[in-house]
Amino acid sequence: MQDLLTEIADTVGRSEERGKLADYIPELAKIDPGHFAISVATADGSLFSAGDARIPFSIQSISKVFVLALALGRVGEALWKRVGREPSGQAFNSILLLEREKGIPRNPFINAGALVAADTLLGAAAPGEALSALLRFIRSAADQDDIHINEAVASSELDTADRNFALAHYMRSYGNLENSPDRVLGTYCHQCAIEMTCEQLALAGRFLLDTGEMPHLVSRERKRRINSLMMTCGQYDGSGDFAFRVGLPAKSGVGGGILVIAPGRGAISVWSPGLNSYGNSKLGTEAMEAFTRKIGWSVFG
Amino acid sequence: MQDLLTEIADTVGRSEERGKLADYIPELAKIDPGHFAISVATADGSLFSAGDARIPFSIQSISKVFVLALALGRVGEALWKRVGREPSGQAFNSILLLEREKGIPRNPFINAGALVAADTLLGAAAPGEALSALLRFIRSAADQDDIHINEAVASSELDTADRNFALAHYMRSYGNLENSPDRVLGTYCHQCAIEMTCEQLALAGRFLLDTGEMPHLVSRERKRRINSLMMTCGQYDGSGDFAFRVGLPAKSGVGGGILVIAPGRGAISVWSPGLNSYGNSKLGTEAMEAFTRKIGWSVFG
Amino acid sequence: MQDLLTEIADTVGRSEERGKLADYIPELAKIDPGHFAISVATADGSLFSAGDARIPFSIQSISKVFVLALALGRVGEALWKRVGREPSGQAFNSILLLEREKGIPRNPFINAGALVAADTLLGAAAPGEALSALLRFIRSAADQDDIHINEAVASSELDTADRNFALAHYMRSYGNLENSPDRVLGTYCHQCAIEMTCEQLALAGRFLLDTGEMPHLVSRERKRRINSLMMTCGQYDGSGDFAFRVGLPAKSGVGGGILVIAPGRGAISVWSPGLNSYGNSKLGTEAMEAFTRKIGWSVFG
Amino acid sequence: MQDLLTEIADTVGRSEERGKLADYIPELAKIDPGHFAISVATADGSLFSAGDARIPFSIQSISKVFVLALALGRVGEALWKRVGREPSGQAFNSILLLEREKGIPRNPFINAGALVAADTLLGAAAPGEALSALLRFIRSAADQDDIHINEAVASSELDTADRNFALAHYMRSYGNLENSPDRVLGTYCHQCAIEMTCEQLALAGRFLLDTGEMPHLVSRERKRRINSLMMTCGQYDGSGDFAFRVGLPAKSGVGGGILVIAPGRGAISVWSPGLNSYGNSKLGTEAMEAFTRKIGWSVFG
Repeated sequence: MQDLLTEIADTVGRSEERGKLADYIPELAKIDPGHFAISVATADGSLFSAGDARIPFSIQSISKVFVLALALGRVGEALWKRVGREPSGQAFNSILLLEREKGIPRNPFINAGALVAADTLLGAAAPGEALSALLRFIRSAADQDDIHINEAVASSELDTADRNFALAHYMRSYGNLENSPDRVLGTYCHQCAIEMTCEQLALAGRFLLDTGEMPHLVSRERKRRINSLMMTCGQYDGSGDFAFRVGLPAKSGVGGGILVIAPGRGAISVWSPGLNSYGNSKLGTEAMEAFTRKIGWSVFG
Repeated sequence: MQDLLTEIADTVGRSEERGKLADYIPELAKIDPGHFAISVATADGSLFSAGDARIPFSIQSISKVFVLALALGRVGEALWKRVGREPSGQAFNSILLLEREKGIPRNPFINAGALVAADTLLGAAAPGEALSALLRFIRSAADQDDIHINEAVASSELDTADRNFALAHYMRSYGNLENSPDRVLGTYCHQCAIEMTCEQLALAGRFLLDTGEMPHLVSRERKRRINSLMMTCGQYDGSGDFAFRVGLPAKSGVGGGILVIAPGRGAISVWSPGLNSYGNSKLGTEAMEAFTRKIGWSVFG
Repeated sequence: MQDLLTEIADTVGRSEERGKLADYIPELAKIDPGHFAISVATADGSLFSAGDARIPFSIQSISKVFVLALALGRVGEALWKRVGREPSGQAFNSILLLEREKGIPRNPFINAGALVAADTLLGAAAPGEALSALLRFIRSAADQDDIHINEAVASSELDTADRNFALAHYMRSYGNLENSPDRVLGTYCHQCAIEMTCEQLALAGRFLLDTGEMPHLVSRERKRRINSLMMTCGQYDGSGDFAFRVGLPAKSGVGGGILVIAPGRGAISVWSPGLNSYGNSKLGTEAMEAFTRKIGWSVFG
Repeated sequence: MQDLLTEIADTVGRSEERGKLADYIPELAKIDPGHFAISVATADGSLFSAGDARIPFSIQSISKVFVLALALGRVGEALWKRVGREPSGQAFNSILLLEREKGIPRNPFINAGALVAADTLLGAAAPGEALSALLRFIRSAADQDDIHINEAVASSELDTADRNFALAHYMRSYGNLENSPDRVLGTYCHQCAIEMTCEQLALAGRFLLDTGEMPHLVSRERKRRINSLMMTCGQYDGSGDFAFRVGLPAKSGVGGGILVIAPGRGAISVWSPGLNSYGNSKLGTEAMEAFTRKIGWSVFG
């Protein structure tokens, strides 16, 4: 395993064509595009890494997986009255379907759906409390204490959050937001600004594996269901292609990270800041394709 | 396994609310909605069934799986220049995205994409030859000789194929159809009119498993990829929900059949003619949910 | 003329089927749906009225005509870089096309376009100043001093302005809003809450006629162009039907008013609070159809 | 008037930037883009022309005006159950709204709506009879015998009619086509291939004027209504802009012709084969803008 990761870091990780940094969030545009890291936390308790696996990065939309788990913990299956479970076939920040489908977002991994999940996480609590609960969950999943929120990134996102504000107001006009757009966006921009290392992310991802060794934060049924949503919706309108190439459930973030779950085997994380046309890490996707082809962890046979 | 199937046939199979027959194809509207069947062809060579598993039914869009395999066999990865690999987020017969995406259908399982696959299967051959090759493939996969095309159904479909003709002409206007719409629709309506029993369908589905016992009609890589497309796109705009509930790649047909693949374990087929709002078998979906919950074959852990 | 108006008020004005009050703005939902008024300010300086023509009502989107005139006065043809001149083919508050057309609204009479016009009217001024300039313009056009803003209505609109906030934030994400959504919506909700009587509205409308007697607030070229936009876009996605039935440029508001221009002949205003399915006054539209059929003022021959 | 037309032919008619020939119909792509003609048939019976006003050209979609008049003559207002009266906000050959609006096209001037009108014109008649009736109508309106159909153009269009076939089949799937797509397209491609000179077109256009001198082929009410549809829908998704610039109802064709009606004053025709981005004659539009600015025939004051 270690050899495989090292080989991937030395080949894929050093590609010339590294994709494009997310430039709409000024703080993220400052990152060195040369970074690359890959980590695997196996179901039997081992951890393997290659590359810059101990440099913290902004997990961005990967946070939607943890928030979904918490929101489901808070309201259970009632969440599905407010958000769907289908791929949207549109870009992550699209507002098109929201008009046709009367304020019910297609799934909890596109921005609109993640705002509903953040609103659910908030409930009647203060944003600070909700964010503390989220950090506690992630730290506990990873068994790591130093996972934190980067306030500069959160603030940078809030300043450029007009499209997300539009989504929030739009859903509110249909009664599908309990809290004010200000509170929901405040929470959302902070959850996106959580920073952790590639190693920590792989460790945190283990909560979606179902083996004796792993932290039992959610039920087996719920793990499966979150994994299914990651498979069909986790890479936005590139989800079908990712499933075709990699064959594993995964969630990407515009910070260049991807969390990938190989049920029964391990949690994998990759990080490379440059993005492909769907807004997913370019080298991260290529690394995962190389990884599963070699190791044969596809869920599809 | 036999007990489980019998129990499902006795409970789910006898539900009062059985969904709605596809009424736009007159021949299909004549079927008795009371039918129910479930079969499992396991990776180790056993076959289990319950219900009307030896009554032939129209496989309809399930044929798209076999045609895709043959089309990939014919032109290889070049097929992906003419059709995408992403869920469409729209109904199976939608023409919306085709306009925005200049005649390239989202995936080979919505009607537009299946017409491209049928066009590829045809190539320069006569429709009769192409259909013979398709029947040979399916008979060989199932190891059953009496799988056939119901000409009355094919003819009934051709009479009511205006939306499919619209899709074909539309793609042709973008140069994404080699054969005439008449030839492509002639082939397509016949492939949809293939009839087999639930048992035969489960046996035929084994070609997507990767075990020593199974017929080796396509490469392991290709099996995985076809399975991934079934997972993300196999139930049209209900694919996300099916993945969430059942956790296995599958392809449905408006005849009420569903072919489900449990990689490494077995191929499952269900048949109940009434459809849910997505156009997938209502009781078939419920039966598969009950089946995987009990037996734990979800690919998601 | 007086006889015609009286006859219309006595017949159309007393119809049983009066349409539906706009219920999304609580203050507007309180209006008595039994009101009906019609006024004609002729190009030669006469004023005719029938019905409740001296009861003030909320002009709502009719204000967009005056704001457009002022915005064009402020920045001239440069406005058309930020907003189009085409019918949208969608509902007045739709956000669909805004996504496809990158934040440039189709025309200044749908909500998104009116927000751009309000933003232009604002420029670097305080909302209070902009609104004062608007009131001065309308009072001057009507030669009436007691036209005012109803603060209760403005405040009621601001409380239920989520869809408009969504439009504002969305356009801002594309750089098509200079002022903050709060400032623009504050201005917009106040302009919509302007109240005047049916008589005053007909008098104010004369600024779009081109005759010696009328106040010369805008150039002849600009009058024509504003009239053309009222013809093609003034009744949202019911504009074609209104042109077909009435044959005159017009702008409606959800308060139930419609301002209609008969070039060279007169300005007509009608008021009846119940709306048809497009959000335009039901009896107002019917009254205008009866009026032009009788008097033959259609611009179409 | 003659001086004005000569001036326009000498200035606008000689512009360097002449737009782009319609290249999807091979026969039309052969036309010399250097042609320019303008003709005015006044309400009092005079005829003025400048440029190549006696060279026949393909009227293409301008034929939709004559077919609409005949279809209304055949079935009256019942036509409006099968086609709307609203601008579509989409390209002339778009199929998008047809899906959302269940096979009812937005208006009779986009292709889908024109196919419904052609289907209505056909009724139970043979295509040959329907086309004869159409030619009789146009010849009678123009008082010219040598207006004819160019069979080479008709045949060229039929060969490249896949998008129109798609529209026809699509509407037929919703029951909104009585005749087969083959018959309707056969008729439609022939009506588009009618050829006449710029002079003849201006003369034929007089049937939409309402003065004592003109041929009375349709009622006054119907003239107004057809004119209103030309205003709101006659230039596809450039209709609003045309109304803004020119201020007169008009219908364009991809052959580079435009028929413009100045109610009470005259019928104007222009021809220049190069098209703008909406598919309307580039120099034709510019010529009409210059013409109405000078002569002041805008219906808007």
